Amino acid sequence: MTKRNVAAEIAAIGRRFYERGWVLGTSGNFSAVVSRQPLRLAITASSLPKGTLRASDILQCDENGRVVGRGKRNPSAETLLHVEIARRRSAGAVLHTHSVWSTMLSDTWPSGAGNDAAGVPGIVIQGYEMLKGLAGVTSHEHRELIPIVDNDQDMPRLARRVGETLEHHPAAHAFLLRRHGLYTWGDTLADAERHVEILEFLFETIGRMQGGPSWR
Amino acid sequence: MTKRNVAAEIAAIGRRFYERGWVLGTSGNFSAVVSRQPLRLAITASSLPKGTLRASDILQCDENGRVVGRGKRNPSAETLLHVEIARRRSAGAVLHTHSVWSTMLSDTWPSGAGNDAAGVPGIVIQGYEMLKGLAGVTSHEHRELIPIVDNDQDMPRLARRVGETLEHHPAAHAFLLRRHGLYTWGDTLADAERHVEILEFLFETIGRMQGGPSWR
Amino acid sequence: MTKRNVAAEIAAIGRRFYERGWVLGTSGNFSAVVSRQPLRLAITASSLPKGTLRASDILQCDENGRVVGRGKRNPSAETLLHVEIARRRSAGAVLHTHSVWSTMLSDTWPSGAGNDAAGVPGIVIQGYEMLKGLAGVTSHEHRELIPIVDNDQDMPRLARRVGETLEHHPAAHAFLLRRHGLYTWGDTLADAERHVEILEFLFETIGRMQGGPSWR
Amino acid sequence: MTKRNVAAEIAAIGRRFYERGWVLGTSGNFSAVVSRQPLRLAITASSLPKGTLRASDILQCDENGRVVGRGKRNPSAETLLHVEIARRRSAGAVLHTHSVWSTMLSDTWPSGAGNDAAGVPGIVIQGYEMLKGLAGVTSHEHRELIPIVDNDQDMPRLARRVGETLEHHPAAHAFLLRRHGLYTWGDTLADAERHVEILEFLFETIGRMQGGPSWR
Repeated sequence: MTKRNVAAEIAAIGRRFYERGWVLGTSGNFSAVVSRQPLRLAITASSLPKGTLRASDILQCDENGRVVGRGKRNPSAETLLHVEIARRRSAGAVLHTHSVWSTMLSDTWPSGAGNDAAGVPGIVIQGYEMLKGLAGVTSHEHRELIPIVDNDQDMPRLARRVGETLEHHPAAHAFLLRRHGLYTWGDTLADAERHVEILEFLFETIGRMQGGPSWR
Repeated sequence: MTKRNVAAEIAAIGRRFYERGWVLGTSGNFSAVVSRQPLRLAITASSLPKGTLRASDILQCDENGRVVGRGKRNPSAETLLHVEIARRRSAGAVLHTHSVWSTMLSDTWPSGAGNDAAGVPGIVIQGYEMLKGLAGVTSHEHRELIPIVDNDQDMPRLARRVGETLEHHPAAHAFLLRRHGLYTWGDTLADAERHVEILEFLFETIGRMQGGPSWR
Repeated sequence: MTKRNVAAEIAAIGRRFYERGWVLGTSGNFSAVVSRQPLRLAITASSLPKGTLRASDILQCDENGRVVGRGKRNPSAETLLHVEIARRRSAGAVLHTHSVWSTMLSDTWPSGAGNDAAGVPGIVIQGYEMLKGLAGVTSHEHRELIPIVDNDQDMPRLARRVGETLEHHPAAHAFLLRRHGLYTWGDTLADAERHVEILEFLFETIGRMQGGPSWR
Repeated sequence: MTKRNVAAEIAAIGRRFYERGWVLGTSGNFSAVVSRQPLRLAITASSLPKGTLRASDILQCDENGRVVGRGKRNPSAETLLHVEIARRRSAGAVLHTHSVWSTMLSDTWPSGAGNDAAGVPGIVIQGYEMLKGLAGVTSHEHRELIPIVDNDQDMPRLARRVGETLEHHPAAHAFLLRRHGLYTWGDTLADAERHVEILEFLFETIGRMQGGPSWR
């Protein structure tokens, strides 16, 4: 895929996610790997509304999250998380969204309560046909654990914690940042977009079924 | 209707359902009968996003669910269910959607609890004016029973169970697959689309009125 | 306004309401008075999807709800209700929608319980700024009573009951048919559309605040 | 920004807010400062639907809320609130919306209960990443207090009360009018629109998590 095509596809994803209310304000950020050796990501610039992205809003960054080439703009503040995912999952694309339901579900489990052996809390989803849309899943009986990572403004520290979480959960297709949003990925932008749609669907379904006062 | 028109109409339905969030990911599949003798269905190819269907994404299959003619693509994994419905209901079109509310309602009754004489659980809807939009219904006092069939990855087995359910419920306009979604049909694609809209409306209404912790 | 303009405006309202999910299936019907003496209404034909109305889908009917002029199509089955409202309220336009929230709220009060002196149950809305958008209302302290009329497939009988309800509630801007939907009106199509938007907003707000198990 | 550009940008914001259901009926009003000395605001005319604004629907008013220049139309009834905000916050743009969730949340605290030292009730939001989109906020740990002001049809009196509230809460990015809606602002129309999106997202998230019968 050419650089121009990558930017156009990222802009189209931004419009679709904006219409669904998944990237309000200037929230969310999107990337695609354009080179493996050396690692280069096309990534959205920082602090932009996502419903009206243009090709010039997509920057290129290296494996340390620094912009490659000229340009006055900064890449997304969360670039290090994209790099971490691109490396550890060999992902071709990483998408991060801030939906109402993912924010709500990310807050369900108590911080630091250590819900699994690795001390990472998470959401278990099982029994839904929609799970079959996740890469490599062939039955609704699949058990998906989506880890929840505490939010942090110290990006190198958060990137390390994300890296550890990815290692502890090698089968996970996504993770949530607490009261922050969803990160998922895929071989291509289309695969990652499919994962966002599937997980948002499942979060809304699970969230509505819990409903009412059990939230507190 | 010409083959080209069928494909265009299926693509338009895909866009409308995608906008409403009823076929997220690559979920959902759509078919229309293009010949009765021998039975031939125009049906969406497997694993496609439904918001951007093109004419080349619509295949033709026979009464065994096998692709007719050349082409490298596979028809939807659930083609056998479409064939079963087209035969037993003499339906001209079959639409399958995955909405949040149909997924929630399909999970309301316990699996295998045998809520009717035939041992099939189901949802009863009665007293709503919207029911009059279902083919042949002339009063809001109509009692619609929508059977719930347990989900299964073994398609020939699931198709047999769907066939039995259709026989046991000759008046049903639709059925739900548990934690999976809605199947409905009609004489034409427009009739089937109307049935989807009506049933999704009723599922949301009933679901919201149950609300809160009564879900569990 | 010319006949062509009326049809175009009705079609535009149909598209907007369809997008919001207020006229799914073939539900809803719309009319505008095109002559007072004798009474003539432009009204949507029966059993049409409302998202794709064309000028030829708008018929003209007389004060008995019969089609004026040639044409094979029937006007909406609920034409008599439109005539009743156009006469008793001197309305220039009448809009009928089937939303999830209006259907839910119409079912809140027990049938025939006689919640006011006239034996008609209803919903009271007071204290919301949005009420000021109803014709003639100048303060959020306004008290709007929206009567609920039991649904009925006998149209002449339902039209009589609607007529009585309008007489008993001379200040009402709208009424609900139980488990069926909303009727509201205005001097112009734009006024009636504004009333639909305001009332749907208020129904959703009130409905969400009741929430949970208190529905049952 | 030219006068024509301001009007075009306000119209585009109107369309986007209308699509999300935040300015139904003729609710909502929008302004941008076009001159500081003397103070001049471009502001939406009174009683207009916000989904179809045109350049001629944007008036200019002075520091007393009176229309500048010829023209038969009146500025929004709430013009004095816009002037108050533009002055005390040195805001370049002020946006007012009526969403379901802001209306619901504005009704959470009892009128006149005096929830803070200044006797003004309010909503506290803390711990959400989305807060970082508010001007000057750098961490999700930020504590945002959104004051709630009782609604009033006496505009000069309401403007005084809004002025006092702004003085008592110098860090607030917004306030709510009870059972009425949201006011927020920014250096530019884009900044104010971002604030609306962020606050609406947070209101919906908080509202859904409270849910159920705890509303009453």
